[in-house]
Amino acid sequence: MTQIINGKDVAASVIAKIKAASDTLEAKSGVKPGLAVIIVGDDPASHAYVGAKGRMAKECGFNSVQHTLPEETTQEDLLKLVAELNADASIHGVLVQLPLPRHFDSEAVIQSILPEKDVDGLHVVNAGKLATGDLETGLISCTPAGSMLLVRTIHGADLSGLNAVVIGRSNLFGKPMGQLLLNANATVTMAHSRTKDLAGICRTADILVAAVGRPEMVKADWVKPGATVIDVGINRVPAPEKGEGKTKLVGDVAYAEASAVAGAITPVPGGVGPMTIAMLMANTVIAAYRKAGETPPAF
Amino acid sequence: MTQIINGKDVAASVIAKIKAASDTLEAKSGVKPGLAVIIVGDDPASHAYVGAKGRMAKECGFNSVQHTLPEETTQEDLLKLVAELNADASIHGVLVQLPLPRHFDSEAVIQSILPEKDVDGLHVVNAGKLATGDLETGLISCTPAGSMLLVRTIHGADLSGLNAVVIGRSNLFGKPMGQLLLNANATVTMAHSRTKDLAGICRTADILVAAVGRPEMVKADWVKPGATVIDVGINRVPAPEKGEGKTKLVGDVAYAEASAVAGAITPVPGGVGPMTIAMLMANTVIAAYRKAGETPPAF
Repeated sequence: MTQIINGKDVAASVIAKIKAASDTLEAKSGVKPGLAVIIVGDDPASHAYVGAKGRMAKECGFNSVQHTLPEETTQEDLLKLVAELNADASIHGVLVQLPLPRHFDSEAVIQSILPEKDVDGLHVVNAGKLATGDLETGLISCTPAGSMLLVRTIHGADLSGLNAVVIGRSNLFGKPMGQLLLNANATVTMAHSRTKDLAGICRTADILVAAVGRPEMVKADWVKPGATVIDVGINRVPAPEKGEGKTKLVGDVAYAEASAVAGAITPVPGGVGPMTIAMLMANTVIAAYRKAGETPPAF
Repeated sequence: MTQIINGKDVAASVIAKIKAASDTLEAKSGVKPGLAVIIVGDDPASHAYVGAKGRMAKECGFNSVQHTLPEETTQEDLLKLVAELNADASIHGVLVQLPLPRHFDSEAVIQSILPEKDVDGLHVVNAGKLATGDLETGLISCTPAGSMLLVRTIHGADLSGLNAVVIGRSNLFGKPMGQLLLNANATVTMAHSRTKDLAGICRTADILVAAVGRPEMVKADWVKPGATVIDVGINRVPAPEKGEGKTKLVGDVAYAEASAVAGAITPVPGGVGPMTIAMLMANTVIAAYRKAGETPPAF
């Protein structure tokens, strides 16, 4: 019987743990974790994401701050705001909602965030710490960190003897995911658009992670029977069966057929998706504990 | 016919290119690349390595500086010297010979070197740049960089469609090597001591890289016929055939039998070994070009 990995449930238990940790820290040290989110411009999807993050931060008991800047904000003014938040002792996490309007140098903005407040895990210092296996002092990119928690619900923390295949080699997901799997002792193969016989390589995977942004690319015959399948894709596709002009969300895995072969699989939506925001909150409470000189909770 | 990859020849051509680039920079900008090497204590092997680096730097036309500190040097004094070299405009590369005597916090010393002078490529910022595919502004760890040059002599710069397997996941070699291969479009598998069916996984490799420190562990039947084999191991073993108490150097690959199967293979010694010091010089001239605001040569 295939196990459906319920990301909503796992995320809810992470949030409960964060809330308790936040309360403990405040009681012990008088420190309330603070998360500042900066959004520039009017993109409705970005505003929806930022709104969700703010609500979740409040639910976790955090000090939640949102800075909404007009589209025409200059790079200089944005950097100035980041510098202020870097210096603000009540703020432990700083997040700049991406994508920024085109006239910004996004990379320079991201790199201007103090590594210890970089709760998105995008700073080069955090990338370097993850790449060298230092999970104790860095902050890990949220979606791979959340995906690892889902893997752990099936396989535990030690993946010795298991083959993991990651499809997709982005800096945001594929590379850090591969590094986390390797750090957990998996034998890790990084596959991508230049890979020959992608299906055959995927079939060697005990843990198959797809992050390519192609609707239902991974078919049933790419999946080793009994494998754990983590689907990171979120693709909106037409759904004429729901009515004219209607759409639906699907992953990078052909869920209906692949779930007949897999041992465990994440659905889309409701799999990896809910984990990302939960791990953002986890990074914020970790950053607050570290700043207070306390040992942070482990997730 | 198996091709023997001659690391000495490749290293010599790299050194010739560095020498020319160093001359050009001095003629154009009046800048002579400067390499400072710090050695602490009396370890004879370390002194031999440092001596070789100094001679090579002079051969490249560099300003070569050696700081020899007594065993009882304090962490504080060593950090002070690094800070002085960081601030010294005539020095473009700073290298602290490892291992340091036990009372040092080596990691703190390494991280105190300015990333742009970290010609060993060990700083977390350089690790992060490599991990995120930024090869333009960072400095790459010398042995993996040199190993990639050897791979390139066989396969060119684009490894699309090729499977690479790296055995060993150290921060010094295995991880950066995997990142370089991935960046060159190979499909990369990171294998290690916790890998199940290591021989079988190695047999999938078009490019097999061994860096485990176990004499002649990789046998002929681990090698796919025609594969390129890069042997990073340098192990000293008894050689009774040369006389009582005699020793010899062997790699991690059983060279005699594996070379009958491989398409191309590096010998030990004379394969990867000579590349490490060459790439150290390459990093130094690259750092000097960048500091002078000039486009550095590509290796």
